[in-house]
Amino acid sequence: MSDQHRQFSLSCPVPLGNHTTIQLAHGGGGRLMRGLIESLFLPIFQRHGVAGPPAPPHDSAVLPVEQGRIAFTTDSFVVSPLEFPGGDIGKLAVFGTVNDLAVAGAKPLWLSAGFVIEEGFPLERLRQIAESMALAARTAGVQIVTGDTKVVDRGKADGLYINTSGIGVIPAGIDVSPARVRPGDAVILSGDLGRHGIAVMSVREGLSFDTTLESDCASLAGLVEAMLAVQRDIHCLRDLTRGGLAAALNEIATHAQVGIRLDESAIPICQPVVSACELLGLDPLYVANEGRLVAMVPATAAEAVLTIMRNHPDGRDAAIVGEVIDANPGIVELRSRLGGSRILELLTGEQMPRIC
Amino acid sequence: MSDQHRQFSLSCPVPLGNHTTIQLAHGGGGRLMRGLIESLFLPIFQRHGVAGPPAPPHDSAVLPVEQGRIAFTTDSFVVSPLEFPGGDIGKLAVFGTVNDLAVAGAKPLWLSAGFVIEEGFPLERLRQIAESMALAARTAGVQIVTGDTKVVDRGKADGLYINTSGIGVIPAGIDVSPARVRPGDAVILSGDLGRHGIAVMSVREGLSFDTTLESDCASLAGLVEAMLAVQRDIHCLRDLTRGGLAAALNEIATHAQVGIRLDESAIPICQPVVSACELLGLDPLYVANEGRLVAMVPATAAEAVLTIMRNHPDGRDAAIVGEVIDANPGIVELRSRLGGSRILELLTGEQMPRIC
Repeated sequence: MSDQHRQFSLSCPVPLGNHTTIQLAHGGGGRLMRGLIESLFLPIFQRHGVAGPPAPPHDSAVLPVEQGRIAFTTDSFVVSPLEFPGGDIGKLAVFGTVNDLAVAGAKPLWLSAGFVIEEGFPLERLRQIAESMALAARTAGVQIVTGDTKVVDRGKADGLYINTSGIGVIPAGIDVSPARVRPGDAVILSGDLGRHGIAVMSVREGLSFDTTLESDCASLAGLVEAMLAVQRDIHCLRDLTRGGLAAALNEIATHAQVGIRLDESAIPICQPVVSACELLGLDPLYVANEGRLVAMVPATAAEAVLTIMRNHPDGRDAAIVGEVIDANPGIVELRSRLGGSRILELLTGEQMPRIC
Repeated sequence: MSDQHRQFSLSCPVPLGNHTTIQLAHGGGGRLMRGLIESLFLPIFQRHGVAGPPAPPHDSAVLPVEQGRIAFTTDSFVVSPLEFPGGDIGKLAVFGTVNDLAVAGAKPLWLSAGFVIEEGFPLERLRQIAESMALAARTAGVQIVTGDTKVVDRGKADGLYINTSGIGVIPAGIDVSPARVRPGDAVILSGDLGRHGIAVMSVREGLSFDTTLESDCASLAGLVEAMLAVQRDIHCLRDLTRGGLAAALNEIATHAQVGIRLDESAIPICQPVVSACELLGLDPLYVANEGRLVAMVPATAAEAVLTIMRNHPDGRDAAIVGEVIDANPGIVELRSRLGGSRILELLTGEQMPRIC
């Protein structure tokens, strides 16, 4: 898009009008929809420097690439409630997709944003969520380059659902994949478990804690970049979301056909999460995070990677929590503090619906 | 992803179980969600050859690119009802995003699919929609390379919403953009107006016609490729969706700061659409299509492009319907059959909500 063009769309936006809530017509492809895009989303994304060229009027963003490999991922966010301690659906939608790209070894670059909004949703609340998205995108160093807005009738959504898809570039020489996990690999966790799930559940269930427990919702892009800078040969990375550490490791164990043995005493979990899990009857190993990853690293490189992680603000509490083994392919085993052992099975469903 | 890997995910899928409807747990990141992906979506996409490497267990698809430009777009589909004459939400979700890429001059290659499903949704219906998606993807020559499944509680969605995002590659030398539209350009329409909108409305309103009116929902990728093969210097392409021809041309006139003059008698509209519009009080120039495009082409090339379009199955009824003019920048003017003239304004909302 030419500069002339972008200037135009900035200088003559269709105004948002006098509505304070979303109308069905805001999704109709007419003036109200253009107003929503040009007077709500775009100015916020532009102010934070994340609207990135090209700004809309085209149906697609046009983006330059070098020869190589790109990572492409998608995630829909239906978290309930939309706001929770430490974040909201906007922050979650940006970091969730950024993290899926980061754990593929990619540098996240571009996001799309698709909104499904319920008629009657307050515009001020939408503005705050767009602000969260813009801030998160700036933090993660990504641009929101294309988007879509749909409105559904009252009662046909739960306020707002956001889909983000993302593209990142995988640097030459990086090959992070469950297929590369090998017996002997160290299993490194980037921080403590369960904060996101418990922060969301605390609002839903009306729990209060002595100290405010906030979601760990964060970009993992910087941490992964630092890890790959010290050790290009990281075998596998996975961010912990639905189903927590247990689900992530079960998938890897199944697909790589290896066993994974965890040392319970090495797994960091903060006291408020432990207490809340006891109260709610949850197992913290299955509770969702949104700013934690697990890494499978050759044993010889484990200490070096751990040191880098602990020196990074998003990996301060990183710990080696287990190892990949030859025995019991497909099985994740937890050695307890008391010397016993249990299998961490993949649950049928999840302990907590609509956590992301 | 290694072949060994893909073979594994094909040979040992988690079974779907005995459920006949979607449970909240199908979105929980556990065994049921894996069953839904590995025993419903993947086998259907694989059978049609559109699941494409890599199959899931990674968080992102890893895709090879050449140096150049890619197009990236996103669209959420909330059409009501989910099935309509000539298509369903699955077909629409694939072709809608394919078309956004095609009209950017790109060859569509890869799609993501994000599902937000309401608890209680019949699995058999989901299977049929996945079949539609797979067939559409095969027709358009794209692969569905990454996906996401979320489930929301009963009453928190209208059955099913689908987001698709897409990536295409723009061949060197192609530059299709509203910024390139110039006075003197011919305005070519690829076919008759309004079929999609009226097909959907007919189900909603319980209308019946003497002949079944089907949605025009189709891939425009082949047509665009044929047009660019005969004339690389097409200035602008736009597919007609929400707001129909009038909205598409208004956006272009505004952003390119040109006037557009249409000749009403040249615009193809079939009789059932005319009748239905009279009955429903709709203006066919504002009714949505999902398989039509409008092209802005240098006048000297217009006849050559028109001939190619008419020889293509998706452009048989193509017609030159107007021209780009210097006067009245930002204004779309319709010259009527009787010699009068009216301005086609951008409507505030839309005549028909949830048409895509």
